[in-house]
Amino acid sequence: MSVYDDLMAFQRQTEALAQVAGRLGWDQETMMPEGAADQRAEEIGALESVLHARRTDGRLAVWLDRAKAPDAVGEAQLRQMRRSYARAVKIPARLAEELARVTSLAQGVWAGCRAREDVAGFLPTLARVVALKREEGAALAEGGDPYDALVDDYEPGMTGAAIAAMFDAMRPRLVALRAKVLAAGAPKGVVGTFDTQAQLALTRELATVFGYDWTRGRVDLAVHPFSSGSGHDVRITTRVNEVDPFNCFYSTIHEVGHAAYEQGVDAAYLLTPIGQGASMGVHESQSRSYENQLGRSRAFTGWLFGRMREVFGDFGIADAEGFYRAVNRVHAGYIRTEADEVHYNLHVMMRFDLERALIRGELDVADLETAWNDRFRSDFGVAVDKPSNGMLQDVHWSCGLFGYFPTYTLGNVYAGCLVKALRADVPGLDSMMAKGDVSAATAWMRERLQRHGSRYLPREVVTQACGFEPSEGPLLEYLEAKFGDIYGL
Amino acid sequence: MSVYDDLMAFQRQTEALAQVAGRLGWDQETMMPEGAADQRAEEIGALESVLHARRTDGRLAVWLDRAKAPDAVGEAQLRQMRRSYARAVKIPARLAEELARVTSLAQGVWAGCRAREDVAGFLPTLARVVALKREEGAALAEGGDPYDALVDDYEPGMTGAAIAAMFDAMRPRLVALRAKVLAAGAPKGVVGTFDTQAQLALTRELATVFGYDWTRGRVDLAVHPFSSGSGHDVRITTRVNEVDPFNCFYSTIHEVGHAAYEQGVDAAYLLTPIGQGASMGVHESQSRSYENQLGRSRAFTGWLFGRMREVFGDFGIADAEGFYRAVNRVHAGYIRTEADEVHYNLHVMMRFDLERALIRGELDVADLETAWNDRFRSDFGVAVDKPSNGMLQDVHWSCGLFGYFPTYTLGNVYAGCLVKALRADVPGLDSMMAKGDVSAATAWMRERLQRHGSRYLPREVVTQACGFEPSEGPLLEYLEAKFGDIYGL
Repeated sequence: MSVYDDLMAFQRQTEALAQVAGRLGWDQETMMPEGAADQRAEEIGALESVLHARRTDGRLAVWLDRAKAPDAVGEAQLRQMRRSYARAVKIPARLAEELARVTSLAQGVWAGCRAREDVAGFLPTLARVVALKREEGAALAEGGDPYDALVDDYEPGMTGAAIAAMFDAMRPRLVALRAKVLAAGAPKGVVGTFDTQAQLALTRELATVFGYDWTRGRVDLAVHPFSSGSGHDVRITTRVNEVDPFNCFYSTIHEVGHAAYEQGVDAAYLLTPIGQGASMGVHESQSRSYENQLGRSRAFTGWLFGRMREVFGDFGIADAEGFYRAVNRVHAGYIRTEADEVHYNLHVMMRFDLERALIRGELDVADLETAWNDRFRSDFGVAVDKPSNGMLQDVHWSCGLFGYFPTYTLGNVYAGCLVKALRADVPGLDSMMAKGDVSAATAWMRERLQRHGSRYLPREVVTQACGFEPSEGPLLEYLEAKFGDIYGL
Repeated sequence: MSVYDDLMAFQRQTEALAQVAGRLGWDQETMMPEGAADQRAEEIGALESVLHARRTDGRLAVWLDRAKAPDAVGEAQLRQMRRSYARAVKIPARLAEELARVTSLAQGVWAGCRAREDVAGFLPTLARVVALKREEGAALAEGGDPYDALVDDYEPGMTGAAIAAMFDAMRPRLVALRAKVLAAGAPKGVVGTFDTQAQLALTRELATVFGYDWTRGRVDLAVHPFSSGSGHDVRITTRVNEVDPFNCFYSTIHEVGHAAYEQGVDAAYLLTPIGQGASMGVHESQSRSYENQLGRSRAFTGWLFGRMREVFGDFGIADAEGFYRAVNRVHAGYIRTEADEVHYNLHVMMRFDLERALIRGELDVADLETAWNDRFRSDFGVAVDKPSNGMLQDVHWSCGLFGYFPTYTLGNVYAGCLVKALRADVPGLDSMMAKGDVSAATAWMRERLQRHGSRYLPREVVTQACGFEPSEGPLLEYLEAKFGDIYGL
């Protein structure tokens, strides 16, 4: 056995244990009896402590120093391991433990304060989380920008400055588009109730249409839709709203995008450091393009309208064109997770600016609510009516997820580029999708991007797939064309 | 922190990880997509290797040598840990790995050979397993009887000789009872089909009646019924046969017996070495007494008959007495898992004698089929018609489970004693059970036995619960009285 082989064998067990930890998370959200919560916390804690010990194992330094990669794939494996090890040993054990403990408690505090509209009650906890994340960022950055270090965790190679430049270029066009669309008045929505079992049957059909491999996954109900696991066991969840079937259908298509990415990684990379999606942003490029650029296209919604009429009968929409407008309805709202394609990125951009300022010490937690509300009025044209519709709406910051928000919009930007390239490569795409056949699109994504896992850096794999350097242009052109058309702008 | 505290903290993480491993097993049988099998094997292998390293961790020897128990419960904790550590370090790593590998493959070989009725094809594999288990037994026994060492794994403190003496005393009376009952002719069984959903609804009601705590468990479908987990997360499975509702109902009550035991252990023992049932035999005493002595009693079946009539209407049984006879129908058969109370122990006893002779080197694997078939004819009065009804019927030996079979009958023996004591303590038991109220019985089991977990040795806890030394007498008296009555002997 070479040093490289030793290292890969050790890492393979670590990857397998990380999959087990992920499965426990899935179980907790879908299957676990409520009385098991405390015991489960201990089980996860024990497994995380095993994982932490393996990720900081002293042998890794020696192995990583001496290992010779047998080929270019091996180089990518070593790059991923060096990155992970360097990160793990920079965080003092004391800080890692305190972050775990504080963020675990903070989620409960956040949920209580959100329910009571109690910003003041949440601020001391948030201040503690921000202080710890600033400390973590500083430890990782070693003199550099602490926010960049946190972003790099989710989006290797990306910086706050690069994101800021991109977002600053996008904001004026999105604010202008939002204003024009809202002024044009909302299209008609669906009416009536939609049977839960019928929704679930159709959602399974949609998962199949978008290439979900049922032999290596399953779909269950959960409070929040998510995708979990890598390789041969990638499970997703969905939820059902009896008066809004699009909630179930499009959150499922979104999660199938994430799951198809993980299922699509080259089987040779299974349980290795490159055996997972390249970054959160690239992941979101898959879920968003499946959900929006493909799933909410005129072509595909034409087919979906027919299927929904077959399943549910009349639901107040006369024809496919009206259905396309209903699916792409733009409406003013406070909540990011309920936002349409026009509003969504504006939500993300304001969170990015605010969290970056918090981590860089340019904004105090005490001033966050004012900053949030001012920015919301400026970008969305309305005043926040209550904290649960404002700065208390997202769980992310209480979890310590700083640097994560921008990857949502980065995913949309990548999706804009990828689907532009896809459409250039597959001219008959719309006529296929109009028959409910998305396989050419999903095969293209698999071949061009998904199969590589983390073999390449995020921006690298997107550039290779597209054949051009990604930028915000294609997304903005797509949004302006689509919504300009729908709203007759 | 004292040495004892260090030890308990270390052990607590080990227990938590063992619970995780158990949950993976549950997932595999209930939820896992079929394509995930290979990946899951690696995940379980990684976790087992972490567990093995912890169970043989060099620090344990030092800690166990120096630790001072703070009280009698602490003494029991140390006893369990010393036992586990002594066992773990006696098995060479090479042997442990080979046993894991060989038995894992052997199960597939067994399944194939059973399907093809191919004894000769199975013998080389079985011979390899027996050789490895003999080696393991010898390593554990350190000069003593290797079979005793294997039995001790499942039933601490029990020996092959003690079991043989007990079984030898039981066999003639059971053989005689079997012959008389079969000569009397079989009672009428149920007729018709029983809706799956209605069976599942009633089986949930039965689980509740027998004290299953739903806040700390759940019931799912699986190929084989089983109970999994300890403490606050104890899940069971069941299966449904549309023409035999008793399959679902009684296998559920059986598993609830196992689960109630684990759920009933004192919460202070959660995730500690004594936080689980005392042995396989004591476990089986709970599942068997719930299923048979209570669940198949005239009193309880009277209530169940009424509920089944309400749910299913007429199913060919006129009255509660006929129903009692149908539930307790004795029929000749080859298969242990389908055996009634009269036949069941005869199955176990022959396996015990055969496996003990194999491990002690007194019987060669090549002669096993002849030995099995001769013994079957002698105890059951009929010839085995094919290997799948003979020595190929059980998975146990291919899994390396030698020393496990006798705990089934030991459980029945303990159940006989426990229910005798219960009936003496709770005189109105039958009138309560006739109304579907089993709570006095389950509360007695919890208070007398379940809550202690492994605080006491198996025989010790049964003796304390009963107030007398357990023996085969009460079980035999119960069986002779019950079936003598039903069959008018």
